[in-house]
Amino acid sequence: MNKQIPESEFTRPEVTTGPLPASRKVYVQSKRFADVKAPIREIDLHETAGEPPVPVYDASGPYTDPEVTIDVEAGLSRARQAWVFERAGKDGIEEYEGREIKHEDNNASGKYLARAFPVKHKPLRAKGDTPVTQIEFARAGIITKEMEYVAIRENIGRQKMLDGAEQRVEQGESFGADIPPFVTAEFVREEIAKGRAIIPANINHPEAEPMIIGRNFLVKINANIGNSAVTSSVEEEVDKMVWAIRWGADTVMDLSTGRNIHNTREWIIRNAPVPIGTVPIYQALEKVGGVAEDLTWEIFRDTLIEQAEQGVDYFTIHAGVRLPYIHLTADRVTGIVSRGGSIMAKWMLAHHRESFLYTHFEEICDLMRQYDVSFSLGDGLRPGSIADANDRAQFAELETLGELTKVAWDKGCQVMIEGPGHVPMHKIKVNMDKQLRECGEAPFYTLGPLTTDIAPGYDHITSGIGAAMIGWFGTSMLCYVTPKEHLGLPDRDDVKVGVITYKLAAHAADLAKGHPAAQVRDDALSRARFEFRWQDQFNLSLDPETARDFHDQTLPKEAHKLAHFCSMCGPKFCSMKITQDVRDYAEGLSDNEKKALNLEAKQGMKEMSEKYKEMGSALYLEAEAVKKANEGI
Amino acid sequence: MNKQIPESEFTRPEVTTGPLPASRKVYVQSKRFADVKAPIREIDLHETAGEPPVPVYDASGPYTDPEVTIDVEAGLSRARQAWVFERAGKDGIEEYEGREIKHEDNNASGKYLARAFPVKHKPLRAKGDTPVTQIEFARAGIITKEMEYVAIRENIGRQKMLDGAEQRVEQGESFGADIPPFVTAEFVREEIAKGRAIIPANINHPEAEPMIIGRNFLVKINANIGNSAVTSSVEEEVDKMVWAIRWGADTVMDLSTGRNIHNTREWIIRNAPVPIGTVPIYQALEKVGGVAEDLTWEIFRDTLIEQAEQGVDYFTIHAGVRLPYIHLTADRVTGIVSRGGSIMAKWMLAHHRESFLYTHFEEICDLMRQYDVSFSLGDGLRPGSIADANDRAQFAELETLGELTKVAWDKGCQVMIEGPGHVPMHKIKVNMDKQLRECGEAPFYTLGPLTTDIAPGYDHITSGIGAAMIGWFGTSMLCYVTPKEHLGLPDRDDVKVGVITYKLAAHAADLAKGHPAAQVRDDALSRARFEFRWQDQFNLSLDPETARDFHDQTLPKEAHKLAHFCSMCGPKFCSMKITQDVRDYAEGLSDNEKKALNLEAKQGMKEMSEKYKEMGSALYLEAEAVKKANEGI
Repeated sequence: MNKQIPESEFTRPEVTTGPLPASRKVYVQSKRFADVKAPIREIDLHETAGEPPVPVYDASGPYTDPEVTIDVEAGLSRARQAWVFERAGKDGIEEYEGREIKHEDNNASGKYLARAFPVKHKPLRAKGDTPVTQIEFARAGIITKEMEYVAIRENIGRQKMLDGAEQRVEQGESFGADIPPFVTAEFVREEIAKGRAIIPANINHPEAEPMIIGRNFLVKINANIGNSAVTSSVEEEVDKMVWAIRWGADTVMDLSTGRNIHNTREWIIRNAPVPIGTVPIYQALEKVGGVAEDLTWEIFRDTLIEQAEQGVDYFTIHAGVRLPYIHLTADRVTGIVSRGGSIMAKWMLAHHRESFLYTHFEEICDLMRQYDVSFSLGDGLRPGSIADANDRAQFAELETLGELTKVAWDKGCQVMIEGPGHVPMHKIKVNMDKQLRECGEAPFYTLGPLTTDIAPGYDHITSGIGAAMIGWFGTSMLCYVTPKEHLGLPDRDDVKVGVITYKLAAHAADLAKGHPAAQVRDDALSRARFEFRWQDQFNLSLDPETARDFHDQTLPKEAHKLAHFCSMCGPKFCSMKITQDVRDYAEGLSDNEKKALNLEAKQGMKEMSEKYKEMGSALYLEAEAVKKANEGI
Repeated sequence: MNKQIPESEFTRPEVTTGPLPASRKVYVQSKRFADVKAPIREIDLHETAGEPPVPVYDASGPYTDPEVTIDVEAGLSRARQAWVFERAGKDGIEEYEGREIKHEDNNASGKYLARAFPVKHKPLRAKGDTPVTQIEFARAGIITKEMEYVAIRENIGRQKMLDGAEQRVEQGESFGADIPPFVTAEFVREEIAKGRAIIPANINHPEAEPMIIGRNFLVKINANIGNSAVTSSVEEEVDKMVWAIRWGADTVMDLSTGRNIHNTREWIIRNAPVPIGTVPIYQALEKVGGVAEDLTWEIFRDTLIEQAEQGVDYFTIHAGVRLPYIHLTADRVTGIVSRGGSIMAKWMLAHHRESFLYTHFEEICDLMRQYDVSFSLGDGLRPGSIADANDRAQFAELETLGELTKVAWDKGCQVMIEGPGHVPMHKIKVNMDKQLRECGEAPFYTLGPLTTDIAPGYDHITSGIGAAMIGWFGTSMLCYVTPKEHLGLPDRDDVKVGVITYKLAAHAADLAKGHPAAQVRDDALSRARFEFRWQDQFNLSLDPETARDFHDQTLPKEAHKLAHFCSMCGPKFCSMKITQDVRDYAEGLSDNEKKALNLEAKQGMKEMSEKYKEMGSALYLEAEAVKKANEGI
């Protein structure tokens, strides 16, 4: 056993808690299951709005619930464990001692060893062939509590719309997706059974609030955190995780390398209300001192068990990087840019052998199934530059990922597929279409893509463009890119900028796909903007703090929050103020005056039909043309 | 005459000068005209690259040329004036006294009056019907020096490509644009004659370096600056203009309101090597004390003359906001969000009359033609929220802009058309297609569009997404949006972030459209990245300072600039380093070993054809499918 760092030298992780401005956490009770209630954030508006609170999806977990006492040393409540036991029955799941922690798991000792998480839980695993994964239950026709939970979450705003309380938003363009007006638990089950969606939920991560990743659900985002050999600590990473979900990250990947990987991960998972993903080959490589050639299947397998027992919800596995594909990267401008991909390429060349990830793929499936760890089939040959986009190496691997998807499905595993990378705009849709075709509509999970290589320092934006587009085309989850991409390890501020950028990209995609209630928040914010409810405008935005701060830089006084202008245009040039004057003016006119000015739009177009027949018919034709053009995009 | 502020109380505008890192300004000599030479920035690479300098488009003017002495009090060289005289002849152009400056032009006196620009130039104008505008010369079959100048600029990197020195980049998807492999002055002339491109170049702004705006040329960006009634000064605005073009703004709009509009503009124009645009109705409104109802055609006309004499290169004129369209905005969530549009709406309702911009449109044309001020037909009814996108008000106005385009063309004026605004992704292309159709392919000049309303503080990004897309679809110039949009007046930092964001969006569009040499810079940067030439990576980026700063935050030492890793992954996990190891390893193998590993891609696919026939044919089929899919997007 390794010696532990004395508590006096250990910094207790500090995390940000408390609600966002004007926000309350409410829980929606399931009608099906008494112990299922899903969180929503409700944003209260100023009384002058005369509008109900705006409900928004909430990935932030108990940290934003003032009713919950947060103790990072104890971890979050493990309420979901009861669900796991109850549905599996005695013969389905077993609790066992678990693998013993080895020195190599942290690769550190003495003062370099990070303190272990104070509480120890025994791991669970499947005992036999009865269903344990969400896809197995789905195929068996069983609606799990997780399925019910995500159905409630996905429906935020939709019930109102169905009831007619909110106007139904005009259909977007979903490119063949099948987005229902209302999400039922049965619909969730069907989508999971078909492999078109996953609920990453390791049975050993009962702290997590279930969420769903699939083309017919809201577009999700992932934030990467993790220490590296060069910098950062356990405390920083726990804080970053909580920080990332505060701003909206739906899942978090712990990409730690260097020392203390095991302990860092334990702290993160025990405190994570969102699914945690990892790339197990990183830790395996640390265990062999960073020498790729020394990797073995046994070490890798042991690492999978270690991480599955801790509760990692999805593993990136680069099993599609095959020996015959390596030469396809020889003429690339940037070669292999995936860490996992390059590690495996080095191993394969050194051993003159096919990748053990590929040759042992079925064993990997069997192992991951036991814990319901979802696959995130890694794109080890993704392009790392515009020059390499959509090349043969990339697409050869994608075909193999399609083949492996079917194997994993047969083994009862949930699967998503990772995608590029660096891709110019005109080559993005091809990626999406090919992924859907090759991988049987398994969810796509893309990094960006970056649409140009020339803006290091701004790659959250070069990639935000590609992310919004591919999200629209059908990608289910967008892996964020921070401003530090290509340059250094993101800090707290970078994490926030990355998350907000990807939240707005995902939301832009939801709007374009025609998610029924997506526009509710845009409309509420636009109304607040038009009515100079500045506080509401800040509170409804993805980043209320920054919005308020930017406003206050020029007009800091509280009185300015009631002003009918801002410093951008000043009072005389505020178009919204003038428009309101125009409307007020029109209100004050007599009926005859109004008629003369054709201001009676609200009283119907009929009276105006004669006068503006010519214009009107042109407009109606236009509406038809727009509709057709929208359909034909 | 107004009293002037004493010099002791006046702050001399300070501007940023000097080359960007590792950059030299070079001038390409025209073969056609001895006095035409166009600037290029060449970025030198490290000697280990073994590559020639990378040429990039350079809008920064003499400020980045160490050979030129900058004197903001004297203004830039007025070399282009000779071109104007020489081609117009004595009977074409006259120099005249010009309109006398009035109190209302600055609306300030005593200590509130900003100092007038120290040097006074007499204005020029057309005397008769002989050609004076670029479109008139183009139609007459005459290649002006401006046309030659822009042809040289647009060809950066293309000559090499034609010569085969650089690999020709695969065709993008241009949606029917007609981008030539090489831009000749004759092609420029044809495009201008057809109205498909403009060179905004007021004959009274001889300090400007000609640039072209059109769908078949590189996508340009505009930066808005200008003081407001609430904040900022002359010095700040001159500095912002120079700052904006340093980072790549192709044109700058001075949107000043409040006091000192005339003097601020004079300082900006005399020091501007890029075209300057304005919205004259703003100044006209100041002249009537901010009371829209008090505006008159005469005051507006006088303002046009004032600004045309100063040298404004393009005017935003909201002549498409017609009386019958106002009621179409009655049910909008955000009404009329264009300042010019709302001012004119108020005027029309107050007077029960059609807009004087519409009724006097031909006179406006005659006036603008005399100075070759280009039209930027304003979209006064653009949507200000997702809810209002592509509505009847917006499209009715666009149809009117199409009608006015033809009037302006008939009058010998150059024209571009302004576009939205707030538009969700699936509704963007409709805008572009309709604009091309209605406006006879006159260049489109769009603000964003913003693809969601929910991210104030990040609207450079919500709009950068839309800008990249509409640029790809065919927009010729993108008007930047800064992080302060909707919240306050942008400061210097915001201007830079806005410009860089829009430069990357425009570049992403150029790549996707298939501009022949666009990818040269991406490829050079990617090679630098792969070879760990950190300094080259910084220097080739759009913002070398930020890229370097981000890198140095974690690895500040100079030695780290040679490191084969960064803090993101650390040395063991750097995929690029590992890939290079893989390649080095492969290099060291015997021929037989190489064969066994199929590493001979560079020696042709032939030898491998047997072994990987199956895989190979799948890949070739794929290449075909990709090609087809790309064509069909």
